[in-house]
Amino acid sequence: VAGWLDALLDARTRLAAVRERLAAQLGGAAGTLAGFGGRGPEALEAYAAGLGLAEPPLPWHAHRGRVAELAAALQQTAGTAAKIALDVILLAQSEVAEVAEAAGGASSTMPQKQNPAGSAIARACARLASANASLLAGGLEHEHERAAGAWQAEWPALTAALAYMGGAVAAVRGVLDGLRVDEERMRRNLDAAGGAVLAERLVFLLTPRIGREQALRSVRDALASPAGLRDALLADPAAGLEPEELDEALDPATAMGAATALVDRALARHRGGDAR
Amino acid sequence: VAGWLDALLDARTRLAAVRERLAAQLGGAAGTLAGFGGRGPEALEAYAAGLGLAEPPLPWHAHRGRVAELAAALQQTAGTAAKIALDVILLAQSEVAEVAEAAGGASSTMPQKQNPAGSAIARACARLASANASLLAGGLEHEHERAAGAWQAEWPALTAALAYMGGAVAAVRGVLDGLRVDEERMRRNLDAAGGAVLAERLVFLLTPRIGREQALRSVRDALASPAGLRDALLADPAAGLEPEELDEALDPATAMGAATALVDRALARHRGGDAR
Amino acid sequence: VAGWLDALLDARTRLAAVRERLAAQLGGAAGTLAGFGGRGPEALEAYAAGLGLAEPPLPWHAHRGRVAELAAALQQTAGTAAKIALDVILLAQSEVAEVAEAAGGASSTMPQKQNPAGSAIARACARLASANASLLAGGLEHEHERAAGAWQAEWPALTAALAYMGGAVAAVRGVLDGLRVDEERMRRNLDAAGGAVLAERLVFLLTPRIGREQALRSVRDALASPAGLRDALLADPAAGLEPEELDEALDPATAMGAATALVDRALARHRGGDAR
Amino acid sequence: VAGWLDALLDARTRLAAVRERLAAQLGGAAGTLAGFGGRGPEALEAYAAGLGLAEPPLPWHAHRGRVAELAAALQQTAGTAAKIALDVILLAQSEVAEVAEAAGGASSTMPQKQNPAGSAIARACARLASANASLLAGGLEHEHERAAGAWQAEWPALTAALAYMGGAVAAVRGVLDGLRVDEERMRRNLDAAGGAVLAERLVFLLTPRIGREQALRSVRDALASPAGLRDALLADPAAGLEPEELDEALDPATAMGAATALVDRALARHRGGDAR
Repeated sequence: VAGWLDALLDARTRLAAVRERLAAQLGGAAGTLAGFGGRGPEALEAYAAGLGLAEPPLPWHAHRGRVAELAAALQQTAGTAAKIALDVILLAQSEVAEVAEAAGGASSTMPQKQNPAGSAIARACARLASANASLLAGGLEHEHERAAGAWQAEWPALTAALAYMGGAVAAVRGVLDGLRVDEERMRRNLDAAGGAVLAERLVFLLTPRIGREQALRSVRDALASPAGLRDALLADPAAGLEPEELDEALDPATAMGAATALVDRALARHRGGDAR
Repeated sequence: VAGWLDALLDARTRLAAVRERLAAQLGGAAGTLAGFGGRGPEALEAYAAGLGLAEPPLPWHAHRGRVAELAAALQQTAGTAAKIALDVILLAQSEVAEVAEAAGGASSTMPQKQNPAGSAIARACARLASANASLLAGGLEHEHERAAGAWQAEWPALTAALAYMGGAVAAVRGVLDGLRVDEERMRRNLDAAGGAVLAERLVFLLTPRIGREQALRSVRDALASPAGLRDALLADPAAGLEPEELDEALDPATAMGAATALVDRALARHRGGDAR
Repeated sequence: VAGWLDALLDARTRLAAVRERLAAQLGGAAGTLAGFGGRGPEALEAYAAGLGLAEPPLPWHAHRGRVAELAAALQQTAGTAAKIALDVILLAQSEVAEVAEAAGGASSTMPQKQNPAGSAIARACARLASANASLLAGGLEHEHERAAGAWQAEWPALTAALAYMGGAVAAVRGVLDGLRVDEERMRRNLDAAGGAVLAERLVFLLTPRIGREQALRSVRDALASPAGLRDALLADPAAGLEPEELDEALDPATAMGAATALVDRALARHRGGDAR
Repeated sequence: VAGWLDALLDARTRLAAVRERLAAQLGGAAGTLAGFGGRGPEALEAYAAGLGLAEPPLPWHAHRGRVAELAAALQQTAGTAAKIALDVILLAQSEVAEVAEAAGGASSTMPQKQNPAGSAIARACARLASANASLLAGGLEHEHERAAGAWQAEWPALTAALAYMGGAVAAVRGVLDGLRVDEERMRRNLDAAGGAVLAERLVFLLTPRIGREQALRSVRDALASPAGLRDALLADPAAGLEPEELDEALDPATAMGAATALVDRALARHRGGDAR
């Protein structure tokens, strides 16, 4: 979840950077501001200020990089929302069931089923935002000063990319506001894995003592043993482990690495308004 | 051409911004830096410094926004190169012929033809860069901590996007280094248009005097007249124009609007290293 | 798995149809076969026959529909392979574990892990095939008789789309040839669902007797009851079910619908060489 | 224009083939038709017949190849319309001016300008159709039986792809119905090229006599000569051409190659309802 937060802060940072660079476009028929007599640059400055947009060095009707840059930021934001939504969808599937949406959609014929409806909306919106953004991203290569048709295609595509990006983010917000987390089930899923998630740690513990080759072999054999991982490893003379150190290594609560520190970093970034 | 320069400076600015945000990725099997004992964050810092990349708040293997952001900058840079190349291609076509590549490719059966070979390479590279960048842009939505296959698809796509972007830009540089500009032909093309490019200006001149409706009608009729635009307008009592003011309005050299000032702005941005 | 087979047969059908329509291209500088004197059409016919390709009504260098059609068939075939690969990947994840690749890749630090390596390759190849096919699909809109650069971009993209499509299909074939299916685990996963997968069936059974509204309520309550679905339903007077009919309804083996007939249809299509 | 016709017939052929393969989808919650008792396949047959769609071997909710195939046909049809529209746009530009739309859009400030408005609409629609079709083309890789969100994204995308494809084709029809062709200008453009378009023919004429190397050199030199192509070639002893044969070679009317026969082939295909 700290990863979700960090990715959302990245998306916000990108949108803010693009917002700052968005510049007004004013040029007249030939892009020379000729219609304004000698006061073209002045008009451009006032026009940009009036719109609350940056003043561009030049009229840019023939160079759609700014539109593509905005589109990319929308696509990345929508994609971030889709990633979170897909995580929720897969963690909510019956066989995993570690999270559930508070307001999941009811299935019309399956009474027990709470579909992750908010996540589905987020993901559908993100795909539609992305498809429309792709059109804009591909619009830089166009002929002459203003490609007939290319320009007109940008309008509905930009509108759709903006609207669907907003839809994706709003839906994910709804999902996260009420997400139910089943810690007990998480622990059960961990236990059902029979220590397998700690196998990497055991290999790291044994490698300095017995070499990587043998460490991998001992752990693999123990995982496959009917005696269970713990008892098989204790009985393995090659491993040579004491019960205390093994039990500590097998306690998931001591296997968090730098998780807490990393979560704190994400929270600090969020609270500090850090827009790295 | 000032527009080309400005668009290239935009692309460079975007690449520089992405370059600054590019962060190292180090996390270990579960993204918790567990393999480094208590020294995970320290290891991350040293690793990033060693690579000359930013230190990320968190490991980001599951959130491919940074890859997508890089891909978008590559796509926009390639697209900028493609836009310039297409301008050259269309300005070099026989019926326009205002520019030519210095080292155009010889046609195998048509001796007179100098194909705009550098521009064609730029454009082909840009399309290939864009296709590969699209794959990366679509990679944010992926399942769990590391989507099997999605990650592996990124490697050749990123390599190709980088290489083809570089190819597009290098080819455009070659084109621009030796571009031949035919000013005489430009003037001939303008003259062949029979004053039509100045029609907007004439409408602006007449509108305050005789109203927009009548101004449009007078200029349209004069353009269609067998007498030619100048004589037809002089003979039009509704227009009421003196020969001197008409001749001034019909001189393209006085119809540059703010073109010179705008070119200066682009050059100033270039020289000042302004990376707006 | 019958669905996989049917989708693969669809892909094969599409490829065969495209293969049949693929036509030779021969036109000369202006697309008029002028270089062959009066024998242009004759040359075109012989040329197509020599290549084992269809003879087109006209030279088609300026109309890339055939290339786009081939690209679409490659993309659809690669996508079909990716769908199967993703099914295998998700069914092989620890919490589901209903299938495993015979020759999964070993993890470098996690001894117990058999990564679905073949499926990952299939999926990575499919994405790369699709990105390259997209370039080709977008190539119809191009300027004049032969867009400079557009044509050159097609060559590496077509080569890559063909190669990666082949890679995706070959990898899936490897996966399917040795796929290990864990029927016991499938049954355990079904049982762990506590009858939930049969809920729809129970609603269909009850609706004619007690109305849809009440049927949905009875089944939902029984699913949530600590007594378990079976006992709770038996104890529900609104449901009014006899033990025998309930036990039959709760036996997954009797809940196959038309599955067997449908599998037979897929096999018949496969055996009959039906290329519907 | 025969090429346009042939490409449109290709597009129609592809749409017809897809239309024929479009199959009804009916499966129920698990894709087994279980809700229909023993009469699932019967229900499927009746349902398909009722919809006027093909009966599929299996329910195909999890395999979106049919949707992708339809999307590809829409994209190819829209792309064909865009190609024609872009040809019209570029042939209508002031410097070429060989065609004009009958009902071009008036420019708001440039009275002489008839924008190729129908072609612009066709092209804009085609790009929007293509972007939406791309979403559908990428939908094959999705998780499990029915990817949450992926399915919902298909609805608006399919609707938009159908509508915009129709818009593109309708706009092109409008353009072609009233296209004005300026044969005189075509001839003037040819003449302005100073025989350059016949250079290939001259090389073919000379090569058997004086070798390819010398043929290319003679023609290139003559094209660059201030005397003009004809006189320079006559004066070139290496070429050794008689005035009569040179004049014949320089007459565009005799340089049509198989153009007439090819046009007849396109018309025959159109009239015969040939859907090759």
